[in-house]
Amino acid sequence: MVCEPVIWQDDVLSIIDQTLLPGEFTYRELPALESVWEAIKTLKVRGAPAIGICAAYGVLVALRENPPKSASEFLDVARSAADYLATSRPTAVNLFWALDRMRRACDALQGESRIENLFQRLESEANAILAEDLELGKRIGEAGAPLIEAGMGVLTHCNAGALATGGRGTALAVFFEAHARGVSFRAYADETRPLLQGGRLTTWELQRAGIDVTLICDNMAAHVMREGKIDRVIVGADRVAANGDTANKIGTYGVAVLAHAHGIPFYVAIPSSTLDLSLASGASIPIEQRDPREITECFGRPVAPPDVKTYNPAFDVTPASLITGIITEHGIVTPPFEDGLRLCACHAPSVAGTTSR
Amino acid sequence: MVCEPVIWQDDVLSIIDQTLLPGEFTYRELPALESVWEAIKTLKVRGAPAIGICAAYGVLVALRENPPKSASEFLDVARSAADYLATSRPTAVNLFWALDRMRRACDALQGESRIENLFQRLESEANAILAEDLELGKRIGEAGAPLIEAGMGVLTHCNAGALATGGRGTALAVFFEAHARGVSFRAYADETRPLLQGGRLTTWELQRAGIDVTLICDNMAAHVMREGKIDRVIVGADRVAANGDTANKIGTYGVAVLAHAHGIPFYVAIPSSTLDLSLASGASIPIEQRDPREITECFGRPVAPPDVKTYNPAFDVTPASLITGIITEHGIVTPPFEDGLRLCACHAPSVAGTTSR
Repeated sequence: MVCEPVIWQDDVLSIIDQTLLPGEFTYRELPALESVWEAIKTLKVRGAPAIGICAAYGVLVALRENPPKSASEFLDVARSAADYLATSRPTAVNLFWALDRMRRACDALQGESRIENLFQRLESEANAILAEDLELGKRIGEAGAPLIEAGMGVLTHCNAGALATGGRGTALAVFFEAHARGVSFRAYADETRPLLQGGRLTTWELQRAGIDVTLICDNMAAHVMREGKIDRVIVGADRVAANGDTANKIGTYGVAVLAHAHGIPFYVAIPSSTLDLSLASGASIPIEQRDPREITECFGRPVAPPDVKTYNPAFDVTPASLITGIITEHGIVTPPFEDGLRLCACHAPSVAGTTSR
Repeated sequence: MVCEPVIWQDDVLSIIDQTLLPGEFTYRELPALESVWEAIKTLKVRGAPAIGICAAYGVLVALRENPPKSASEFLDVARSAADYLATSRPTAVNLFWALDRMRRACDALQGESRIENLFQRLESEANAILAEDLELGKRIGEAGAPLIEAGMGVLTHCNAGALATGGRGTALAVFFEAHARGVSFRAYADETRPLLQGGRLTTWELQRAGIDVTLICDNMAAHVMREGKIDRVIVGADRVAANGDTANKIGTYGVAVLAHAHGIPFYVAIPSSTLDLSLASGASIPIEQRDPREITECFGRPVAPPDVKTYNPAFDVTPASLITGIITEHGIVTPPFEDGLRLCACHAPSVAGTTSR
């Protein structure tokens, strides 16, 4: 693994402070419930799966911070910690999902009176959330790795990597696995404006893994494709509809159009939990608008007229028609996607969203 | 005019300091040859036509700074000022062209003995360079304005505007003229990484002109097109080959591919002096690679691992097949471009390059 973004060891929770990357690679201990909440709120930990894992362990942090004296107090502390942590990022589906798992574990413990037993059971649940995420990443990587052949150039957008997950990533899991198999290839990372997750995080991960990575601005992808440098595009996703339409970080759709125009296969890598079969297509996926200052400022200094009108959608939707295949832990689903995705969803754990934010 | 980037008045040269935009709109006097050289070198004045105009007046600055006592000394001072200013930006074709005009004006003055006559003749030459540029911008604007109809959304990339020229622009001249004719439309500006000329300069100009402008990141153009918000794309160019292939700021090619995929007409606006008929196609146009720090740093602070490999081409080439029309001072040339462009070039002044850098 290129890094472990969330570590629970000897009853201490530590995270990689992602706000300091790529300049500084530092683990930060989160000794109190409040510091866990703050770390999620301020994006020190980011990426939906990583947030969920961190929050699950955050319940354990609360229990160690103020050790309960009775079983009923124990469950009260655990539940109220879960309720509190759920307020840290109100739109993070994985956060709610992970905390619900912890709450359900509490429910299953009614009647258990030994506090250390209670703690061990919740700890097992948090460990399971992490282990399952790592297993998903491993299987996505194995499913996708054969797509990357020696000498290829492979472009990704944003960060669907180790940092966003338990430590294996989704799209980047494919890169890591191909590299582990000894395949020599060139990775290209779109910097991914406005928040530069590609420039700050994806390059850092790929460098750290020893993969040959080149950073480009988003608007250079077309030129690099035209020069014949790109053979595959592999990206993550936030939400995939029943027909394969894919919502992902803004810019993904443009990359898909460009890949199509240059005859380059375009893949989406997701755990099947990212499937949302309640959506027939991507048409009804709402697109969140974000703070204009993400575009008009850099380190607090203006890079545009301060009062300029902006349009800052967080995501876009790539139609299934531009997608060559969807890489899941169950294998690669190819068009038409409906049947294959339905099969995948049958075997999926009940979590939605693997945002690469 | 939305602004006058270079002003010569009462024997004083002033420029808008473009490095302070959009935060601060300030004229800076350039009282000495050295300050003119420095202003060009440090991009206080930028855009090939604007640089040429500034340099031409820079010769006059040198003559006023150290008034020559004889006609021969006058011509020596003027010529050596021109030689010196030519070293400020070694790749700026318009700079050399403008200074060559000043040198030729000197050559034509052999035999004239009155210093004030000499000065007036050189001043007339510099004024002519500016006036011709303004006239070109005016005619490009008039030729292109009918393309913009009420209610349309029009996207541009980088800054081919007033600031880059004598004050009317090339691509933006079309926006200004349509607005002057009372057409109500929405402008969209790509921010144009890595140097953000779109975010810093184009938005500033369009706002100042009273045009409804929305700033987007480069990677949002595809999504905005898919939403039906864009009806035309109009960009400038650095160099147009005989077949219509167009070199312009990096990212232009990608916008052209996206426009084509969405059925949106894509126009290039240039003075015919930007034509380079010595190039049969764009295939042989060399693409300059620029400093990695333009991508990896922002205000001197890292936004990517400091040692990451980057690819930072200054330009890309849009093939003629993606171009709907080329707007020139002689009208709009449509495909196949060869004949129309050859006709334009016959009437062109002898200057190459209208870079939008």
